[in-house]
Amino acid sequence: MKLDILSIGDELLIGQTLNTNAHWLSKQLNLIGFQIRQHTTVSDEKTAIVTALNDALTNSNVVIITGGLGPTKDDLTLNILTEYFGGKLIINKDVYQDIEKMMTSRGYEMNELNKQQALVPDNAKVLRNKNGTAPGTWFEKDGKIIVSMPGVPYEMKAMTTNTVIPWLKEKFELPVIVHKMIYTQGIPESQLAEKLESWENNLPDTIKLAYLPSPGRVKLRLSSIGNNKDQLETVINLQIEKVKKIIGEHIFSLTEDELQVVIGELLHKKNATLSTAESCTGGYIAHLITQVSGASDYFKGAIVSYANETKIESLGVNANDIEQYGAVSKQVVEQMAIGVRTKLKTDYSIATSGIAGPLGGTEEKPVGTVWIAVASEDEVVSQMFQFGKDRTINIERTAIAALGILRNIIIQ
Amino acid sequence: MKLDILSIGDELLIGQTLNTNAHWLSKQLNLIGFQIRQHTTVSDEKTAIVTALNDALTNSNVVIITGGLGPTKDDLTLNILTEYFGGKLIINKDVYQDIEKMMTSRGYEMNELNKQQALVPDNAKVLRNKNGTAPGTWFEKDGKIIVSMPGVPYEMKAMTTNTVIPWLKEKFELPVIVHKMIYTQGIPESQLAEKLESWENNLPDTIKLAYLPSPGRVKLRLSSIGNNKDQLETVINLQIEKVKKIIGEHIFSLTEDELQVVIGELLHKKNATLSTAESCTGGYIAHLITQVSGASDYFKGAIVSYANETKIESLGVNANDIEQYGAVSKQVVEQMAIGVRTKLKTDYSIATSGIAGPLGGTEEKPVGTVWIAVASEDEVVSQMFQFGKDRTINIERTAIAALGILRNIIIQ
Repeated sequence: MKLDILSIGDELLIGQTLNTNAHWLSKQLNLIGFQIRQHTTVSDEKTAIVTALNDALTNSNVVIITGGLGPTKDDLTLNILTEYFGGKLIINKDVYQDIEKMMTSRGYEMNELNKQQALVPDNAKVLRNKNGTAPGTWFEKDGKIIVSMPGVPYEMKAMTTNTVIPWLKEKFELPVIVHKMIYTQGIPESQLAEKLESWENNLPDTIKLAYLPSPGRVKLRLSSIGNNKDQLETVINLQIEKVKKIIGEHIFSLTEDELQVVIGELLHKKNATLSTAESCTGGYIAHLITQVSGASDYFKGAIVSYANETKIESLGVNANDIEQYGAVSKQVVEQMAIGVRTKLKTDYSIATSGIAGPLGGTEEKPVGTVWIAVASEDEVVSQMFQFGKDRTINIERTAIAALGILRNIIIQ
Repeated sequence: MKLDILSIGDELLIGQTLNTNAHWLSKQLNLIGFQIRQHTTVSDEKTAIVTALNDALTNSNVVIITGGLGPTKDDLTLNILTEYFGGKLIINKDVYQDIEKMMTSRGYEMNELNKQQALVPDNAKVLRNKNGTAPGTWFEKDGKIIVSMPGVPYEMKAMTTNTVIPWLKEKFELPVIVHKMIYTQGIPESQLAEKLESWENNLPDTIKLAYLPSPGRVKLRLSSIGNNKDQLETVINLQIEKVKKIIGEHIFSLTEDELQVVIGELLHKKNATLSTAESCTGGYIAHLITQVSGASDYFKGAIVSYANETKIESLGVNANDIEQYGAVSKQVVEQMAIGVRTKLKTDYSIATSGIAGPLGGTEEKPVGTVWIAVASEDEVVSQMFQFGKDRTINIERTAIAALGILRNIIIQ
């Protein structure tokens, strides 16, 4: 069963509003077995809307439309759809009451614009809106379904979950789709692909593989479509076991895409604590860790030692070593890790020191040179990395690499 | 001049990856005078790509394509485009060297997949990629331009800014669009709109106004389109002067959208230094400050005191006060600010303590309660805020509010 998502609104095309609706709808509708054929975004203009609708109806069984249902003049969707399917607009009492109730609860009286929003096509089913004034509509034509919903995300989401998905499930016999993820870290996409080449070549045709890279990480997605969920899962799980044998040391999770969440769970389970001493990452690792609710259980704090004197005074780094080896060195980063671990009395600690750029590079230590150390009760592990020229990406990659090293040490 | 944006990738259609590329590209290309006709997202499939490309080329002067250029088998875009425009793939020496350099600098050897990425169409211009291995391509046909770029956002963004936009400007005579921004902080959108209502009603028809809110900030964008840049600027500048008279105290910049950059410039000019003591923001303020290259001139460091014992031992907060008033209190946050300022010997300091959520709220101090203090030689200023329920947004809003208070104190 194919499905098209059609987003309507000038604000999307001039880059003012990010189209999170198409993303959210895709996820929900793919999960229940639809194949999303295309996302299309067009302006609030009759020709553009009709052309896109024609195209979507030619190619898909279902078209989900969002946007263009507001009370103002620039919102044309409802009139266009009603005309397109040969109906006319009539007042719907239930919708009128919904709008009246909503406006009263907000302390406003119904105005002319609100009253007009109670007009619905006589050739469509109405989708009531619990969170706003514009109702949705559900057209059927030649066995195809066309749904129109408001563009306001929380109104659209409630309508989708409460009405559209149940109705679609009733209407169509949908296949089962199973997606499974493998989250890897510490190996670039091309190297990963090389290691997995012969496995990939022998993948059954029923399984689709995708590589999804982001700085410092690559996700592998295995997908399969069929009728029997258990059977599909068994086939995919078998392949995941094979992947684990080939690149197991790079996999940090099969269920969770954030290293800081995985680490949080490991520390929580071990009843262990963590601290960070950050120079080039400037607090970013602490920020990642504290993005996770409940981090206060295992994260005691960080010392962001951006200045050398902070490294010396707050972390106890030897001033002579900074002089002799430089702040970006094995010696200094290891002392930083030991220093913060001792100072904040934690089981584990992470330290970073590097040249994030774009300034500050030398011939010997160009921009992107980073030292990372992780300390535990038993050991201090340190490693040098050579990242790129982009400051933001270097900070991100340093953080991910550091969390990767920490994870390896925790699970030893 | 019309422009289509074509995004390629199954990960977008199954709702796994949010399409931020189309959004970012729209904003940039609209700014230089293109009318964005349509966004289309299709899967990594030949028919889908070719159909979408046909449609885009029929309707627009320029087609910008992202995605499907990775080194792996699921990436088909380059082959399809090369064939579509009747060319063939040949090894490009410059690109080969770019890739080799990139892989070597990261400590890897070139493998077969990397080598293949040096294949470019013989009927296109190459867009070098400074941040990754896949080059972009620039096709011209019947006066129309077709650009293909990698889907990885930071690679695509650098390529667009450094090459695609300058080349497009050379190729087309674009109308002059003048956008001017007014960056405000510390006042919600609805309040801002109310204060500006009568000014807005009297705006000349030639000027378009947009409110662009993000957590803790609202940008106002004034736009005008025409042929004479100086004339457009004069008209807009006159309006900006009027806005400054109405809401001047909330404007933090007319040129720079990041408070941390504005603060960096102020500190640099004053030859003054800064430190932070962060509880609920968990290092995020330090991260924002150190995103700015050259921050080491004025930022000495941070103490992220997530645990109470870190507040006591590393910042000298009185344990009894934590007991009596709670960690989220005026007393504690002021002692944190004084503590870090003294400890790291800086001119200014920021401290935060709050309940970011979703857990940890009480009736007296619900989720979203945040105390912020800023200390200087002369004073300690503290303020309580009541933000919302979302952890990430609360951290962001706390950071922005803290930087806003600091800025006001520095410019006193």
